[in-house]
Amino acid sequence: MTDLLVGPPGLPPVDDSGVPLAEQPHHDGGPRHVRHEGALRLGDHAVLRVWVPAAYPVRAVALRAMVDGEILTATLEEEPASPGERGRWFTTTLVAANPVVGYRFCVLADPGAVTASGAPVPAYAWLTAAGLVPWDVADATDFRLVAHDPAPEWVDDAVVYQVFPDRFSRSARVPVDAEGRPAPAELPDWAVPMAWDEEPAVRGDLTGRQYYGGDLDGVIDRLDHIASLGADTLYLTPVFPAGSVHRYDASTFDRVDPLLGGDEALARLSAALHERGMRLLLDLTTNHTGATHEWFRAAQADPASEEAGFYLFTDHPDGYVSWLDVASLPKLDLRSDALRDRLTRGPGSVVGRYLDSPIEADGWRIDVANMTGRHRDVDVTHEVAREIRGTLREAQERTGRETWLIAEHGHDASGDLAGDGWHGTMNYAGFTRPLWAWLADPGSSLNWLGLPMTLPSLPGTAVRRTLAGYGAHLPWPSRLHSQNQLSSHDTPRTRSVVGTRERQLVAVAALATLPGVPTLFAGDEIGAEGLTGEHSRTPMPWDAIAAEDVTAVDTAVLAATRALLGLRREEVALRRGGLRWLHAGADSLTFVRTHPDGDVLVHLARDAHPPVLLDPQGPGPAGAPAVRAVVGAVTAEVDGPVLRLAATGPGAVVIALS
Amino acid sequence: MTDLLVGPPGLPPVDDSGVPLAEQPHHDGGPRHVRHEGALRLGDHAVLRVWVPAAYPVRAVALRAMVDGEILTATLEEEPASPGERGRWFTTTLVAANPVVGYRFCVLADPGAVTASGAPVPAYAWLTAAGLVPWDVADATDFRLVAHDPAPEWVDDAVVYQVFPDRFSRSARVPVDAEGRPAPAELPDWAVPMAWDEEPAVRGDLTGRQYYGGDLDGVIDRLDHIASLGADTLYLTPVFPAGSVHRYDASTFDRVDPLLGGDEALARLSAALHERGMRLLLDLTTNHTGATHEWFRAAQADPASEEAGFYLFTDHPDGYVSWLDVASLPKLDLRSDALRDRLTRGPGSVVGRYLDSPIEADGWRIDVANMTGRHRDVDVTHEVAREIRGTLREAQERTGRETWLIAEHGHDASGDLAGDGWHGTMNYAGFTRPLWAWLADPGSSLNWLGLPMTLPSLPGTAVRRTLAGYGAHLPWPSRLHSQNQLSSHDTPRTRSVVGTRERQLVAVAALATLPGVPTLFAGDEIGAEGLTGEHSRTPMPWDAIAAEDVTAVDTAVLAATRALLGLRREEVALRRGGLRWLHAGADSLTFVRTHPDGDVLVHLARDAHPPVLLDPQGPGPAGAPAVRAVVGAVTAEVDGPVLRLAATGPGAVVIALS
Repeated sequence: MTDLLVGPPGLPPVDDSGVPLAEQPHHDGGPRHVRHEGALRLGDHAVLRVWVPAAYPVRAVALRAMVDGEILTATLEEEPASPGERGRWFTTTLVAANPVVGYRFCVLADPGAVTASGAPVPAYAWLTAAGLVPWDVADATDFRLVAHDPAPEWVDDAVVYQVFPDRFSRSARVPVDAEGRPAPAELPDWAVPMAWDEEPAVRGDLTGRQYYGGDLDGVIDRLDHIASLGADTLYLTPVFPAGSVHRYDASTFDRVDPLLGGDEALARLSAALHERGMRLLLDLTTNHTGATHEWFRAAQADPASEEAGFYLFTDHPDGYVSWLDVASLPKLDLRSDALRDRLTRGPGSVVGRYLDSPIEADGWRIDVANMTGRHRDVDVTHEVAREIRGTLREAQERTGRETWLIAEHGHDASGDLAGDGWHGTMNYAGFTRPLWAWLADPGSSLNWLGLPMTLPSLPGTAVRRTLAGYGAHLPWPSRLHSQNQLSSHDTPRTRSVVGTRERQLVAVAALATLPGVPTLFAGDEIGAEGLTGEHSRTPMPWDAIAAEDVTAVDTAVLAATRALLGLRREEVALRRGGLRWLHAGADSLTFVRTHPDGDVLVHLARDAHPPVLLDPQGPGPAGAPAVRAVVGAVTAEVDGPVLRLAATGPGAVVIALS
Repeated sequence: MTDLLVGPPGLPPVDDSGVPLAEQPHHDGGPRHVRHEGALRLGDHAVLRVWVPAAYPVRAVALRAMVDGEILTATLEEEPASPGERGRWFTTTLVAANPVVGYRFCVLADPGAVTASGAPVPAYAWLTAAGLVPWDVADATDFRLVAHDPAPEWVDDAVVYQVFPDRFSRSARVPVDAEGRPAPAELPDWAVPMAWDEEPAVRGDLTGRQYYGGDLDGVIDRLDHIASLGADTLYLTPVFPAGSVHRYDASTFDRVDPLLGGDEALARLSAALHERGMRLLLDLTTNHTGATHEWFRAAQADPASEEAGFYLFTDHPDGYVSWLDVASLPKLDLRSDALRDRLTRGPGSVVGRYLDSPIEADGWRIDVANMTGRHRDVDVTHEVAREIRGTLREAQERTGRETWLIAEHGHDASGDLAGDGWHGTMNYAGFTRPLWAWLADPGSSLNWLGLPMTLPSLPGTAVRRTLAGYGAHLPWPSRLHSQNQLSSHDTPRTRSVVGTRERQLVAVAALATLPGVPTLFAGDEIGAEGLTGEHSRTPMPWDAIAAEDVTAVDTAVLAATRALLGLRREEVALRRGGLRWLHAGADSLTFVRTHPDGDVLVHLARDAHPPVLLDPQGPGPAGAPAVRAVVGAVTAEVDGPVLRLAATGPGAVVIALS
């Protein structure tokens, strides 16, 4: 067995306990470990189960839960042994006495005890969502039982494809001029028409103005492509008329931009998606509007207008608070009830309206959710999030369709994910950043997501701590219902971050297998490059894709994306399973998605590494592990219960354990 | 230099970075590192400073702060070197743009760099209040700049003495019978009179009923004793009439129990304290009243009464929610405005009234604050805390006296200490528990504060993680204004926990030197024993104290308590300084309280240990460290900048570094 704690000098410890991960007691928020009948409601019981591998000499396991602000404790019972079981289950029940009940386990052993591999076992340790820790820790990483209305069940299984409409696909409905540039009946002042194959600016004045003429009917033309990737949910960045091509500066929320085909086109797209059993996620700015927005114009025109109360004027009409001091994006004041009636609250609000016919959207992605409702000593973010969720709930009662609510948040969103507001977040902090830090091209000069430095290159031991640590700060359902993305319209492209095809394959494997909703930014599947968010908004080269032109399309990445996201569809553990870490080295990460229908092991290698010899020591009899997918230079050999996971270069392997 | 990371097998790592603590970059919430003019208000600037010892090869330090939900970043400037400085200061300013602004530092170094002692330095690491971590961490332990009204400045310097009135001191005003048992004019039904020298029951039916007759005039008689300990603030457990001797089951909040001398006695005590420049902290149950409370009687008598809305009836009159299902303690429903007007809100409320003449209390300790306002899907705790703080603020405007608001909380209180409600907490989680776990008698069979197990014995490395970790979850002012207690009327006695005089001396040294307001439960200073909270409520043996009778009074503990709490008075760093950890071993803990007027080092040993050789590497020229106090079997030798800290048994040393 490889020594999992001690690594090369400077390599951070794999965990706090010093016990090899595979030998540790385990609990997670997945259905192997938390069981209840249907959706959990206030007052319901849940059965909590802790798995202790035979290798770990446990003496007792106790529950500590926090109810009404006070602890309750219980000693877990050991379940009767099942034939062939290679460890022990300890069980108790916990009542969801509050909408969110934090809990953890105290794991006791005899002083001086060691595991099967000889690792010293702490006599006293806490098992929280952050792992096994042999000292008292704060409650921030406690497991959480959540009795709020759950997210739609379809989100558990969703794979999202993100489209930036102007750059995705231009239908025959869009007039073009002789140079192939879009020539609509009314071209806005700001727009600079571009031919489809011209490269967008990396930065500078032209960004936001280069108009390629992608439209919503163009998206309909490409649904076969999207479905071929295993995606079933289309996330469109904003479609409202605006002062730029990104449309985060809406001039109205009342209609879809005619440049994109207008309301009718969006209704056509939605219907086409629904016909295929696919879904539509729209994008709304609740933090700000454009300075050209009809509300803002009314507000500037008349300080006594209702709309004047929608914004934060410091010196009417031209002094006002705006998003990061960008004057074209005046910030909304969500303390205003009148604004909330129009924007977020009830069936007549913007949020409510687009969930109904004819658009029938299946959810909203909320732009700049992290700043929405926050300014100086005002913080109504949670209130607004709960209110939007309520508007979704009402719509469901009207339409019977369950809808999803996702918050953009570039940082630690745990404070905003209590379970009764946003269903999840765009998980930059808990997914994108750690994956980048692990897989980044060591020579990259790309910026580190807003920090005054270039991308760091961190060892897998460090990256696992971040993946596990951020995840532990979220209630499990919030984590499962968050979007994992390797890149977006706001970031450099995955390929430009990681530098090579080989590492991109590893990134795709992580996207397809870690907990959360895989969200693929259109173009990533062909290995497109992009040095900034703006530059990443390169039009899709459809001709090259059709021709499988390897100078413009990385067909290996495309095939792997289809295979790995497709595998997710086959293996319920990859969609709905819990998460159990087994190993971390500088260059490899190994984990199991835990599920009663069968655990699935994933091994990711960013580079060649010494073989990892691993007995997963999971529940159930040691079966015959079956390799379900391999990408890159990774091999897996089975020797009884022990897996030998080797890599001569970047790659990944997915193995069904039983 | 002792290797600080690698310890005996099973000893948890000292920290996450692998860099010896004394060589690490450092920042804390104290005045060496955070500077602003007077109290920090919304919109004010603060200067933030990071100390980097010369031993640490830093390349750059960047700030990451969270404002309006979004990050802002800046690169710190290096301050011009001062003569003799043995490291570097890096500085930036940060605006308190929100009432609480979280921030942290990114510390960069060249790959492959090592410290002066040869420890590998992470190329990329975050410095948060939890220390230096070479991976991305969640925001829960970010430093916090707090622009809410600060706690009273006197709290920075306070030392609290806790008195359980019935058991502290009986004045000549209390009639006694021939057996020396109290014989008041009206003896309540529940009371079982006891002679002063009879031992209270450890558990069973008599607890809560044994009436010894201590009174408030008795406390006045003992103010010399209290002051002799260095204490300047008297905390009285409840003084309202009740159905038990602990009086947490009040029958009214309108007057002081006549058994204690009534309102006049409390006014006399308050005046006597104020005359000495001392202060008075009272104790209020906001979670519940007694079942004999006049409000509850009115509520039971008439379901239509206003008071019926003060409680949570499930089946009027006899079915109701109560504290941990104890029927004598019906839980209050703080959603009721009428209740809040009477109890918590405004000058006429219970909270407001006792701050005014004639009582003029200097603050409230809120009983069961952790459960106050929490039940099922109701959670108005923060709202109530803010409201009580508002009532204190109003009282200050009337009276000119600043008052303190402390929450009882037996667990992680960080979620309740945002800075605008409770000033602090009774810090069981961040002080009492870790100290117990370190100093507990290994053979102890005492219960572990509510968990189904006996006291664990944890190594110093683990205990430091808890002290640092819990502390990091609190805004620095909340930590400084929380109560540190080694024991209370609700716990076994310090002496019974640690088992020996020698270890109690170490505990007292920790009490006197760690951040927070030292809070001494009357009797601890003489080494009193107590196996449960009830048993710890043993009457004070005043005759033995006067006679220095060593069979009943541990005069060594008494002398050390006076010396160490007295030293706190002399060294501003011990009262107001930040906290920088220097070392942790299984049997020793070493830290510095950082302050511009001079850093103070503290070394605590629970047992004999190999010498710790330590260069504190703090700011300023290496001065001539001066030993300010020694207790027990610890020695400190100075060899140039290096301190040799040795112990042949339990003990502590306090050293002024400059």
